[in-house]
This record gives sequence, C-alpha cells and structure tokens, in this order.
Amino acid sequence: MGAKIINEGAKRMSELKLPSRSEDFAEWYNQLVLRAELADYAPVRGCMIVRPYGWALWENIQQALDRRFKATGHLNAAFPLLIPRSFIDKEQSHVAGFSPELAVVTHGGGEELEEPLVIRPTSETIIGHAYAKWIQSYRDLPVLINQWNSVVRWELRTKLFLRTLEFFWQEGHTAHATYEEAEAETRQMLDIYTDFAVRDAAIPVIPGRKSLSERFAGADQTYSIEAIMGDGKALQAGTSHNLGQNFARAFDIRYLDKHGVLQHCWTTSWGLSTRFIGAIIMVHGDDQGLIMPPKLAPHQVVIVPIYKTDAEQAQVLEKARKLRSELAASNLRVILDEREGTSPGFKFNDWEMRGVPLRVEIGPKDIAKNTVVLARRDKPGKEGKSFVSQEGLAGTVSRALEEIQQALYDRALAFRDANTGEPLDYEGLKAAVEAGFALAFWCGQPECEQKIKEDTKATVRCIPLGQPEASGACIYCGQPSREKAIFAKAY
Amino acid sequence: MGAKIINEGAKRMSELKLPSRSEDFAEWYNQLVLRAELADYAPVRGCMIVRPYGWALWENIQQALDRRFKATGHLNAAFPLLIPRSFIDKEQSHVAGFSPELAVVTHGGGEELEEPLVIRPTSETIIGHAYAKWIQSYRDLPVLINQWNSVVRWELRTKLFLRTLEFFWQEGHTAHATYEEAEAETRQMLDIYTDFAVRDAAIPVIPGRKSLSERFAGADQTYSIEAIMGDGKALQAGTSHNLGQNFARAFDIRYLDKHGVLQHCWTTSWGLSTRFIGAIIMVHGDDQGLIMPPKLAPHQVVIVPIYKTDAEQAQVLEKARKLRSELAASNLRVILDEREGTSPGFKFNDWEMRGVPLRVEIGPKDIAKNTVVLARRDKPGKEGKSFVSQEGLAGTVSRALEEIQQALYDRALAFRDANTGEPLDYEGLKAAVEAGFALAFWCGQPECEQKIKEDTKATVRCIPLGQPEASGACIYCGQPSREKAIFAKAY
Repeated sequence: MGAKIINEGAKRMSELKLPSRSEDFAEWYNQLVLRAELADYAPVRGCMIVRPYGWALWENIQQALDRRFKATGHLNAAFPLLIPRSFIDKEQSHVAGFSPELAVVTHGGGEELEEPLVIRPTSETIIGHAYAKWIQSYRDLPVLINQWNSVVRWELRTKLFLRTLEFFWQEGHTAHATYEEAEAETRQMLDIYTDFAVRDAAIPVIPGRKSLSERFAGADQTYSIEAIMGDGKALQAGTSHNLGQNFARAFDIRYLDKHGVLQHCWTTSWGLSTRFIGAIIMVHGDDQGLIMPPKLAPHQVVIVPIYKTDAEQAQVLEKARKLRSELAASNLRVILDEREGTSPGFKFNDWEMRGVPLRVEIGPKDIAKNTVVLARRDKPGKEGKSFVSQEGLAGTVSRALEEIQQALYDRALAFRDANTGEPLDYEGLKAAVEAGFALAFWCGQPECEQKIKEDTKATVRCIPLGQPEASGACIYCGQPSREKAIFAKAY
Repeated sequence: MGAKIINEGAKRMSELKLPSRSEDFAEWYNQLVLRAELADYAPVRGCMIVRPYGWALWENIQQALDRRFKATGHLNAAFPLLIPRSFIDKEQSHVAGFSPELAVVTHGGGEELEEPLVIRPTSETIIGHAYAKWIQSYRDLPVLINQWNSVVRWELRTKLFLRTLEFFWQEGHTAHATYEEAEAETRQMLDIYTDFAVRDAAIPVIPGRKSLSERFAGADQTYSIEAIMGDGKALQAGTSHNLGQNFARAFDIRYLDKHGVLQHCWTTSWGLSTRFIGAIIMVHGDDQGLIMPPKLAPHQVVIVPIYKTDAEQAQVLEKARKLRSELAASNLRVILDEREGTSPGFKFNDWEMRGVPLRVEIGPKDIAKNTVVLARRDKPGKEGKSFVSQEGLAGTVSRALEEIQQALYDRALAFRDANTGEPLDYEGLKAAVEAGFALAFWCGQPECEQKIKEDTKATVRCIPLGQPEASGACIYCGQPSREKAIFAKAY
C-alpha cells in the first residue's frame, strides 16, 4: 500500500516535466524552485520559506563568504531587528529611498508604542548609532563588522529568491579614518564577491560602478557585480557601497585623530543575499532542472543503487554503502539514495531536478566488473556517462567535480560572450538588449540613461572597472564619452 | 600623543574594577557583559546588540549544537519572520501564552495592512502551516527541521542575554507518526542539550520535566535543563517540548498511514538561546571577569609579549609570532596581543576580563631559557602559573586547556552540590532556597507549588529525570509523593 502511494507520487512527478527554458523562462524558474524544494511560498504575501535543500545551499554560500570575510579581518556581530522610525529619517537620501518600503511595528505587549519602530530594511542607521558610541580614537579604527540576518522591504512584485518582502543576506558595515581606506575597503569587498562568484558559484560577473540613479540610498558610490541570466537579463549579484561621511554626519560617528582633532569617520557597507541563489538557478539550470556548482552543492554526488531481486539489493546496497563511506572520508558531500518503492529512473530524474552535479550508478553487473557508472549532470545522455573503476573512486569523483565546476564556468562565460553586443549605434543597442547585454559608450548623463530606459526597458547595469583608456560617442546623444557601460534589462 | 590617549584609557579601565560577585551579583553581571564587550544596549528599550566577542562565543555554541543536530538527522531551514495574527489564535494555550507579548506590524509599504502581522515570538504556528502542506504520507515522516534565528517577545523587565525583547536562538520543529516517536525525539534533544552543556560549556545541568505551570504554551510535556548560577539562582538553559497533537489539530497536519487512514501527526519543538551565554557568565565568571570554557572560547590562548627596548620588542615579537603560528597550526584558537602603548599588566587585566582561559607570557628572559610562562585564568596568582618549554608548546597548551575545561566543570559541580539542600521540612526548604537549590518531595499539585512561590519566590524548576523509586511526603502539604522536585528562585 505504501509503495503504491509513493509510486503514484513518483508517476505524478515524472509526468510533470518542467516547462522548457526557451518556452517560458519565468514559469520554468518558478516551478524549478518549488519542485527542487529550494523554497516555498509563505502565508504572508511576498514572503518565502527557504526549505532545507535551499538552506543547505545558502549555508555553503555563507561559509564560502564568511571564510573570506574573516581572512580579511572582519568580525561577525548581531544588531537588533527593530529600529526607531526616526533613525531612518536622519540621512536624507536614505529616508527617501527606504520610506516607501518599511514594515512598521506600532504595537508591542498589547499597547500602542510611543514611537513606531520599523523592521530593519538594512542596518546603516542602527549600526551608525552604535559606532558613534564605540568609536572615540583613531586607535579604534578601522571597525570591520559583518552580520548574517534577514531584512524586510515591502516590495510589490515578488518572486522567490529574487525579490521577497523578507530576504536573507549578510550586511558588512565598516568605519575608517580616511576616504582612501573606505574606498579600498569598498573595492576589496567587491573583489571578494567577484572571487566568490567566479570560483565557487562558477558565475562570470562584471564588477563595475553603478550609475547615479542606481546607487544605494545614502551612498557616494555604489559598486556591483552583474551577471547574465539564461534569458539574457542581468542580475545584480552583490553590492558594495562607499558611504562617504553621509552616515557619519547623520549619526555623529567621530574619532579623535593623531593630532587630537575630532574628525568624522568614513563608512562603507556591502551585501550579498539569497537572491544569489536565483542567479545560480538561472545561470546553470537547464530543462531538466537545477545544476549545482560542485563547490556549493549540498550533495556533490548521489549514489543510486540498481537491483531487482532481494539478493541483488543486499549485495548492491552493501557495496554502495562502502563506497559512500569512502567518498565521505575524502570530504566529499555524498548521499546514497536508498529509497524503496521508487525506480532508479525516478531517482535519476529527482536528483537531476535538484541539480546534484554527479551521479554514481551501481548494479550487479558493475559489482561483477568492479566498476561504477559516473553520470555528469551538466552533460545529458551518453556523452556525460563513463564507466570507471571502483578503485580510487574518491579521486576519480574529485577530478570529475573539478571538471564540472570548470565546465559550468566556461559554458556560462561563452553564453555571456555570445549574448553581449557592442553596438555602434542606437538601433544596434536596441537590438542588443533584446538578446542580452550591450556594452556601449555612455556620456554619464542621467537623461540619456532615462531615455534609453523608456525606449528599451534596459538600464545601466554598471560601468565596468578596469576599462582601457578610450573615447567615443555616447550611444544615445553622441556626446564625447570616456567609458562604456553595460546596458541590459534586469531582474 | 596616541600612546598617551590609550594609556589614559588603559588607566581608566584598570582603575574601574568590577563590583565583586558577593557584593552585588546583578551589577557585577551587567558591568562584565559591557566591559568584556559581549553585548551592549540598543536604542530600542530591552533590545541588545551582540558585539563581535559575544557573537564569536555564540558562533561556537551554534557549531557545537549544529553538529549534534545534523548528526541526528536534522536539517536547517528558514521560515518567515512575519506571521498572520490569526495564526497565533489557532492553538488555545498558545494564544493565551503569547498574546500579551506580541510585537504587531500594522503598516507595510505606507499602507495599513488588512490583517495585522506579528513578529514571530516562536514558530510553531507558521511551521505547522507549512508542515500541513508538505506532509501527506507516513513516508514523509519524520520531518526533522531546525532554524537559527531571532524572535521577539515584549518583555517588561529585561537584562542583557537573560531576557531581551529580541533574542537569538535555534528552534527545532519535528513531526512524527506516533506519540512514542515524538516523545523519543523530545528526550533525545534534551539529551543533546545536556551533553552540550556538560562537555562543551562545562556546566552541570539537571534534566527534568517541567511542572504544569511552567510548561510551554501548547505543549503536553516540557522538559528542560536547569543550572545553578553563582548567586544560587536557577537558570533554565534549554527546553524540549512534546506538543502532542495540539498543533497538528490546530493546523491540520495529517498523514495517510500504512493502512490508508488519515492521522494527525505528533509534533515537538526545542530551543536553546543566547540566554545560555548568561549561564556561562554566571557559572564560571569571577571577580576579575569572565572565564570562558576552553571548548567554546573565541580565543583559547592569548600570547602577551613583554619587552622594554626596541631591540627586545623585535626579538620577542618575532618569537611570539612564531609560537602563534605553531599553535594556530595545531587548530588552537590563539591571539597575539601586539597592541602598542599598553602595558603587559593592562593586557593581562583586559584578557582576564574577557575570560581567555590561558595566557602565554614571553619576554627576553624566557627567550634566553627557551621557555614561556603559562597562566591559567581559572587559578589566579602564582598557583596558576608555570614555566614550560617552548618545545612542543601546542601539546602543552592543549593539555592545559583540557585541564581547565575539566576544572571548570568540577568547580561548578562542587558549587552546585554545596548549594543544593535536601530539606526534610518546610522551614528547611525556605532556608535552602535562600542559598540555592532545594530537592524535595512534591505531590505534584499546582496549589502547593503556588503557595511555596508566594512564601519563598522559589518555583519548581524541574522534576529531575531518572529518580530512584521512592516515596515521601510533599514538602508543603505532606501528601504522599513519589518524586522529588528542584525548587529554586530563577532567572
């Protein structure tokens, strides 16, 4: 009876193929998130539940970043969720940017509060308040603090991972004695995000400066990393802000310098959120489901046992468990799928949907030959299959994972190259942003940016860093320009 | 000039001794938390900032627990912060327990909400709602999920770490097919908390059942671990609840059993919070400050270099850095205090305040003799000092840390034994709860518990598990009783 129920479930699930990416990218994404059990909708509009499989991915992202933050001298801490409403008003641009998005607590413990509180939309203000108290002398600087938490912004149009009322992230907040140090910190954190995206998530990103209209509310300069998704749209995957002395003035964060003179600090903030999970899905996923980059995959390898008789089952499971132990002992994240009442084919589909990068199949014939089948998630069908010896399987698996990691990156980079145009005129830009990124000279004037947005829905994603010295004509107005910008439609 | 400022700071700090524990335990605690930079007050009444040193301790606590949770098959996830107000009302005891403590969001995105939302005071309701959706068959059970987050309860009297409006914790939530499995899970998690407290935090705890009046709002049975603090009061350091079918009925969490019959699940929840940091402080701290149990200490060893001349400084720092690398290479959490402009004496006091379990002192004479001084934080003065060879220092330090870990536990246990009375009559109980714990027969009637509370301010902390079969007279009413309870005043 039990087996019957499961088989019905299995049938139901394998019959329901995802819509293809080319057919309906948005629906492909939504269904994949739900069916891979990464996240689910919450009872409150626009909120999400991150399910265990999605959270395991986030934990791996957290570790990969946290290691880098700590290696560069940052410490974690925790600041409160509740912020006095008046704090938000203290920094002029900040209040303009965040006021429309606030969730407001008006009652506590059964009584109306004297001053309403807001749930943090970000923590510059409350951390600024604390830094003003903690920082006295130049000897106290720099202060390098990060926190992992969730924030709430009252978004109207929401989508799992990409834009939700509550989302999970880290927010770094630092204070420095000079502009130069703050700028160096801002750029260092952008470099860290870039390194993480490239090496761990296998996502090629373009680090660059934001245009004025896309800057963080209260920043002097915002940098971001931008990635191209499978549908050609851009996704801002991490941001780093040089806040100048804006928050230091608003919150009176001052220090006594070496000459005994009181100076305002220079502050920064930088963040990367669960939105990054959306990027992983939309960069690497295919019509069968998700493909996890091996370095971040909750399960790097799944072992699927294949048997028909009870005798075969006993023999195969014994060997499969032994292999699992060997792989785990080599620090590989391995899972053995011992579920009964489901076919190997169902299991293959299930783990393909969830994006496990490598599958090990083992049946009676493999045992007789002392081999297993390796199947790469990134290469469907025969091309991705190989028969390998059980001897030294951990080494073979490790090498295969490295190859997959590299192949995912190479494929994503080739996709970006193929979908980045360098238009020479405005008609060319219009065509380019229909397919993907357009890299073109821009004069830097908000008016041109605005006109392009009205015509094409594309915005300046960033002005890439490290551009060669050059000059050309603004793609819109023709005025002399020194830098190119990436234009694209964006999530 | 810089050195001068710091020296003034140093002087100010070393002059400000903590109040002694015996003189004013509450004030000793408050000042220690602030001066060891574990936490600070937030601008919103009753909220706290956990500073980097306090958060590093919490991260070590998290790792020690998370490892145990995962080893027993639990997965982490993240459920939303915002819960519809109506959810709280669905379980009768739950609404009665939590309604007075809710923080209510009435406005979002500039508009009044149709239904007010509450910030989770705990997540049984919203998780119950999700489980009802996810669980269909007995094959989906058990569901074993934990989350690390913060919750908000509108407390009136607050104290850093011990009781704050927002606090940090983990909350596990599981669903099972039978009462027996739910009860086994509830007890397993209590065992895990006990094991963690004893082995990692060096805190002896008494695991037991809560009395009816102290049960979690919505639980059929609540278990807790109870520890004695330095002032003789009890602190509930972790709880595990068997929720029976209460939430399963309220949220319709049902599964189809093997016979095709729909059944309500049996659920549990269990949590341990940043309150535990308060326990570590109040169990191990002394008049000089905090004493961190080595297994959880953010810094297990601090190296303090001692020198007068520039030449000595160069020589000593070179050796100190080498020793730091050796200790770090042996996975010891070591910090080298290279601060200039502060005396070794100031550094000693500073790290004693912060409770680093072991100090390594190294100066020119030590270098000449190829030795260092080891100073144990738990044994002040000469008794805790020894001269040891620089050869094999990592091994020597590891052994010393193990000894300190054991010594802290032994001392805490001896203190508890010395402050636990076994009164034979009511007058004896009154005296015992003035000093600490009283272990006495109790008939189980809430009336007796209430009377004792009115007379003495002591409550039933728990009914210890694993009591030998016995019978006696209730310490209050004299009725026949089969079990003893721990009575104490509590945080």
